Amino acid sequence: MRTKLIDEANAKAVERICSSEPTLVDVRRAIEVVPRMTPETIVTSGPPMRWEDYTGGQRNAIVGGALFEGLAANADEADAKIRAGDIRLGTCHDHGCVGSITGVTTASMAVFVVENRRHGNRAFCTLFEGEKRERLTYGSYNEGVHKNLLFLRDVVGRVVGEAVRISGGIPLRPIIRRALHMGDELHSRNTAATFLFSRELFPYLLKAAKRLPEEDIDDTLEYLTKNQYSFLRLSMAAAKVTANAAHGIEGSSIVTYMGFNCRDFAIRVSGLGDAWFRGPLPKMKAKFFEGYGERDVLYAGGESSLAETVGLGGFSSAAAFPLQDYVLATPEEMVERTLEMYSITAGEHPDFRIPYLRYRGIPVGIDIHRVVKSGKTPVMDIGAAGKDGSQIGAGVLYASGSCFQAAADAFVERYGPLEEV
Amino acid sequence: MRTKLIDEANAKAVERICSSEPTLVDVRRAIEVVPRMTPETIVTSGPPMRWEDYTGGQRNAIVGGALFEGLAANADEADAKIRAGDIRLGTCHDHGCVGSITGVTTASMAVFVVENRRHGNRAFCTLFEGEKRERLTYGSYNEGVHKNLLFLRDVVGRVVGEAVRISGGIPLRPIIRRALHMGDELHSRNTAATFLFSRELFPYLLKAAKRLPEEDIDDTLEYLTKNQYSFLRLSMAAAKVTANAAHGIEGSSIVTYMGFNCRDFAIRVSGLGDAWFRGPLPKMKAKFFEGYGERDVLYAGGESSLAETVGLGGFSSAAAFPLQDYVLATPEEMVERTLEMYSITAGEHPDFRIPYLRYRGIPVGIDIHRVVKSGKTPVMDIGAAGKDGSQIGAGVLYASGSCFQAAADAFVERYGPLEEV
Repeated sequence: MRTKLIDEANAKAVERICSSEPTLVDVRRAIEVVPRMTPETIVTSGPPMRWEDYTGGQRNAIVGGALFEGLAANADEADAKIRAGDIRLGTCHDHGCVGSITGVTTASMAVFVVENRRHGNRAFCTLFEGEKRERLTYGSYNEGVHKNLLFLRDVVGRVVGEAVRISGGIPLRPIIRRALHMGDELHSRNTAATFLFSRELFPYLLKAAKRLPEEDIDDTLEYLTKNQYSFLRLSMAAAKVTANAAHGIEGSSIVTYMGFNCRDFAIRVSGLGDAWFRGPLPKMKAKFFEGYGERDVLYAGGESSLAETVGLGGFSSAAAFPLQDYVLATPEEMVERTLEMYSITAGEHPDFRIPYLRYRGIPVGIDIHRVVKSGKTPVMDIGAAGKDGSQIGAGVLYASGSCFQAAADAFVERYGPLEEV
Repeated sequence: MRTKLIDEANAKAVERICSSEPTLVDVRRAIEVVPRMTPETIVTSGPPMRWEDYTGGQRNAIVGGALFEGLAANADEADAKIRAGDIRLGTCHDHGCVGSITGVTTASMAVFVVENRRHGNRAFCTLFEGEKRERLTYGSYNEGVHKNLLFLRDVVGRVVGEAVRISGGIPLRPIIRRALHMGDELHSRNTAATFLFSRELFPYLLKAAKRLPEEDIDDTLEYLTKNQYSFLRLSMAAAKVTANAAHGIEGSSIVTYMGFNCRDFAIRVSGLGDAWFRGPLPKMKAKFFEGYGERDVLYAGGESSLAETVGLGGFSSAAAFPLQDYVLATPEEMVERTLEMYSITAGEHPDFRIPYLRYRGIPVGIDIHRVVKSGKTPVMDIGAAGKDGSQIGAGVLYASGSCFQAAADAFVERYGPLEEV
């Protein structure tokens, strides 16, 4: 295929990314909104895999999801029912969901509903579980996790949902744009975005307060204002509707998905249909919480790297100097990280800009050919999951290159060799 | 005086700055809380001056203050009454107030009441007038300005005051600390701080909503969430109680006031009692709003430079890259600006830190001797007032050195020559 045609296709993909208008339109139980969700369905992060291959935290979280829904009385029963197909296992991606770490999403859980008002597609993401040590997100399930999921659904989800419906939809693009000027890269840091979102929500919370129990409003406010991460799930859903909008463009070599299950890292490519290109789990460099170290890391899946897929997160390092300790880099190195990503991307965002780089647009549209040619792979900011089913730190990793090579090979197979004319 | 003793005195001044805990405790009419305020008193920004010497915007605003209070029916009558002493003119500083540009504060205006919970002193600042072109702050007075001042007093002041009283006080130090990580320098940029403050206020607004008219709550929310500058007045009051806490230390050469009236720039020094040291108005470099230029600048006073007096504003340039266009500097030059200020200050703040500088503390405690010795003068971010009584841009200036020299001379006169032993 002639590179000029690829460039044109990629420009179209970049345009779709850059013109996306993610908007929070609702908070609902998954069963009410997620396509093909059934009471017996459990979806989880990453490329599809056989049940037998799920291990550690991701497996625990899937079992936890079954217990949360009352689909099984214990882990053994859950295992048997999944094997028998009585509990149906699916991937987040196939259901329009996007998963944080384990990403387990079940029928009755509350999910944010984010709509791309420009391109019409939707994505769904569960709510941040708060700062408790044990979370389903990180592979834990017990009475406390269970209660907290009910709180998210019956209190936070209900109140925020009511407020969002009153609002008619809260545009996320202006929040992301502004948060990039306020120290966020929208993956490992969502501090500003969380406050900006709360601010947008507040007038509608005040209206919702007339219809809902005062205690629930207070608890929701507490949830929204005490943690600084709740926007991450909105950032992820925003990234998902944005990346998906760029998928399926004939001849485009732009990456539209980067994510993990507990065994593989995988990408999808705009012009390569439904294929998954898998590679090994990259090595994570992280700052660990007190008492934890590299030996405690256990991959448990994760699709928050959709943020990087659309140029946020590690790609926007130069916007988020407050993260320096967690990404193990000096501010100067963080600038270098962002600059490096321009060499593997096809465009720059016209609206999402980085103050330190004299308001240069963030690098968007990861091009598999540029990755293969340069030998540079995408950087990702990431939360570190531990063997004990909790978050044990946060850090940074570079994707392994092999899946990009595999995708490049498939590209040639489908479109013929690249011709530079 | 031996420099070792001066250093000790300055360390004490720096400690008082750094340990200050400014807290918003109330919003009240000035007459209810400002010391020595009377129904006939009008206070204004900057070092004291004879009425005849006030010109332009600052004079207009003083007259406007008289009209607002019904002390005179027109400008001529106001002028006559001020001359006769029937309207009493005072300085912000003498009343514990801090003035934005003209800084005109009168008996019935709403003021923030900020208390330094560590050192017990208080300061008062009027409320941000919103983004309307014509504001008393910039030297305009007319029906619209009048109505807006009433709105600030009767709606915003009342609602926020109620919420603040319910809260028991809103600590400003944590907000400032965090805003420095989010692109604010707390003088020309208060975007993050405004959101953080609103967030702190929300739960109490929700409670206040039960007692106050719904429309007033809605209007206050609109005011708080639509503009990004309302925190400036809190930042200024916080800086004022912080700087004042460092005043009056025997032997200290630390600056505790920097401000303007329409003719002079002036400083005060911790160990030099009530003396004002005046110098010429510095030349402002600014980015002007459409249709305005340097020829339109008219100094109309201003004490927002109290922010720089305690290490914020221009001193914290490296924390606020989003300001690059307004301070006419590249991000690299903004870093240089902050680094330069370390050479004229006696300490670094232990809690207010700049992410880009690997979390180095902001430079605090401007030392007149260091200024004189290095020839470097304090940098200030500043709003540009125009001849037409509106804000016409924002920019940056460097204090003129002569007042520091005058203060250094007075220091020697009082304490004897500096002896380096």
